[in-house]
Amino acid sequence: MSLSCKAIVCRDTHANGGWKMEDITTRKPGEGELLVEMVASGICHTDVLVGGIPGGAAPIAFYPRVLGHEGSGYVKEVGKGVTVAKAGDPVLLSFAFCNNCAICKDGHHSHCMEFNALNFGDSCRSFGEKSNTNGETSIGGAFFGQSSFANLSIVKQCSVVNAKDLIKSKEELQLFAPLGCGIQTGSGTVINCAQATEKDVVVIMGLGGVGLSAIMGAKIQDCRTIIGIDRIESRLKLAQELGATHVIDGSKLPEGKQLGDIVAEYADGIGPTITIDTTGAPPLIKAGIAFTRNRGKIIQVGSPPFDFNLELETFSFMVSGKQFIGAVEGQAYPPEFVPKMVQWYREGKFPIDKFSKFIPAAEFDRGLKEMHEGGTIKPIMIW
Amino acid sequence: MSLSCKAIVCRDTHANGGWKMEDITTRKPGEGELLVEMVASGICHTDVLVGGIPGGAAPIAFYPRVLGHEGSGYVKEVGKGVTVAKAGDPVLLSFAFCNNCAICKDGHHSHCMEFNALNFGDSCRSFGEKSNTNGETSIGGAFFGQSSFANLSIVKQCSVVNAKDLIKSKEELQLFAPLGCGIQTGSGTVINCAQATEKDVVVIMGLGGVGLSAIMGAKIQDCRTIIGIDRIESRLKLAQELGATHVIDGSKLPEGKQLGDIVAEYADGIGPTITIDTTGAPPLIKAGIAFTRNRGKIIQVGSPPFDFNLELETFSFMVSGKQFIGAVEGQAYPPEFVPKMVQWYREGKFPIDKFSKFIPAAEFDRGLKEMHEGGTIKPIMIW
Repeated sequence: MSLSCKAIVCRDTHANGGWKMEDITTRKPGEGELLVEMVASGICHTDVLVGGIPGGAAPIAFYPRVLGHEGSGYVKEVGKGVTVAKAGDPVLLSFAFCNNCAICKDGHHSHCMEFNALNFGDSCRSFGEKSNTNGETSIGGAFFGQSSFANLSIVKQCSVVNAKDLIKSKEELQLFAPLGCGIQTGSGTVINCAQATEKDVVVIMGLGGVGLSAIMGAKIQDCRTIIGIDRIESRLKLAQELGATHVIDGSKLPEGKQLGDIVAEYADGIGPTITIDTTGAPPLIKAGIAFTRNRGKIIQVGSPPFDFNLELETFSFMVSGKQFIGAVEGQAYPPEFVPKMVQWYREGKFPIDKFSKFIPAAEFDRGLKEMHEGGTIKPIMIW
Repeated sequence: MSLSCKAIVCRDTHANGGWKMEDITTRKPGEGELLVEMVASGICHTDVLVGGIPGGAAPIAFYPRVLGHEGSGYVKEVGKGVTVAKAGDPVLLSFAFCNNCAICKDGHHSHCMEFNALNFGDSCRSFGEKSNTNGETSIGGAFFGQSSFANLSIVKQCSVVNAKDLIKSKEELQLFAPLGCGIQTGSGTVINCAQATEKDVVVIMGLGGVGLSAIMGAKIQDCRTIIGIDRIESRLKLAQELGATHVIDGSKLPEGKQLGDIVAEYADGIGPTITIDTTGAPPLIKAGIAFTRNRGKIIQVGSPPFDFNLELETFSFMVSGKQFIGAVEGQAYPPEFVPKMVQWYREGKFPIDKFSKFIPAAEFDRGLKEMHEGGTIKPIMIW
């Protein structure tokens, strides 16, 4: 049986005008699935990245599909075997994992061996064309197990955090929508992956939603120096409000100085102990590896171009004792980490409302534009 | 005042016949220095590496000099400010560090910011030509703070571990000579850097002195699977005696199988949690990064060619959650780690005698040849 819904359907890249709000259909939930009525969905750079690749140009690029992976909503109906929530429960959505591979069993769900297939893959076409009345579904869903750029979507059980005991209102459910991706990625990288402490000097490159969440995470960990780097003044100001002890405007370096020179000035003269790149920009990744102090950690969080190969001078890297670390989703297990973030929010340590902006889902194009220009950091679409 | 001594003086690369046992001179110890009468010095691949670079071809390559960095002996005389030992004390020698930079102060001496200058640099010419009677010293010393390829050498205080309470005989002092470099590097990498536990599946690539010491370290840590890789049958056999649960002869892979296929068979089907490369061979480094499981650590310990740049597919590395880590000297602090190794030896867990071979210092060329051919793993020259 088909259910009518509204969704931002990507039939081609955004640059080619391929993203449109459309009336389509979805279906009843199958085993291990929930039908969720979305109330909100944050827009994340990964949506823009994936929906910006021409179809077939990468294994994860295909059309038509529905993106969206920072959703929140209320359960309408659950399929067989679902235990995480029941109809009527509010839910916050996060990434998908198999919960069955050795990596998941070791508690490292964000690096599940099936991560790419489950979060980016083409195996679950849970939406259908309105014109098709026989219930056939031909439009890709289950992006990050959720495809939350729709007012009604089939969600995998693994992507669900039950928010029944976490939220106080529908508005909170909307505000918390991005917790399960960008915000968890930033704060989790500092807390779970870097395991930063008060002894650490942390550099965060890129102060979007991920970077600012990393700043808040570093502040929660009491890191003694927290340096934010960006090229947009309003973001630098916000980073200071959220806990950065120093900020650097990469577009206004003093003449004759490199980024690493300024970083060193704020970092004991020898560089940070932890560098987190949220930009994916190759020159910044290279600079970060160079300016991090011996034995320091450089954590790659922002998606670099798919064809970018980092060149490491292996001998000198070895002697430096540095660590280059890949991390996604803040190496968090959402059922445990999302409640922690909510708790920090209540304690005033995690004021995500300072960089979030509600917009009607129909105006998603405006949200994308403002995010791209830097005026809006985290647009949250309201359904 | 000049003191007569014998040393293996490198006046050019070994390949060019530039290494010769010669009668030269050394001098009295200055501030923070000790004059040590060597009883033994292990030969390590780093001697061969550094003494194999044409003079001037790398910042660390210059001649004439005296190499050697796995020395042991008895203190003859101490300079001003020396507190670590007094005349007559037996000493085991290790690497040099400044003990003053932020990295040393954080306890990470093996990645001291002055590591290259102090261990490889040209600032301490502590040996002189016999023909020069005015005491001028023009031959490089203080290689790793010790230049122990000499029967008498000026040693920096930082490189000294006092063995007064550690050894029972002169023969033990000779056997323990390599503890402060190769053996510490192998075992320390597993224990200090990887912090391996009984849950880990460890791959060690290259089963020379460093690799076999890593095997012993993994056994001490009770790692559940320990896989040794080499191309020499006698080493593979020895690795099994020392604790390897599986060995792979890289020269005899079954047809149609890659190294990673065989590793996976022994490593839960998905690869090790820890991979340690002691070879520095670029194809093995690349293979190791590929076959290590998600969230696993790849630790670079063997010196790769100076001009080798590792290319990392950055996006997939990020999603994998892997860590590429540089490490030297097993990230050990010798005054603490050397006594531990001696204790393990006494408990029978660290039978370094199984892969050590005493040779007269005059026959160093034979030691180098046997080490190169693989028949001798750790030649220890006796002075």
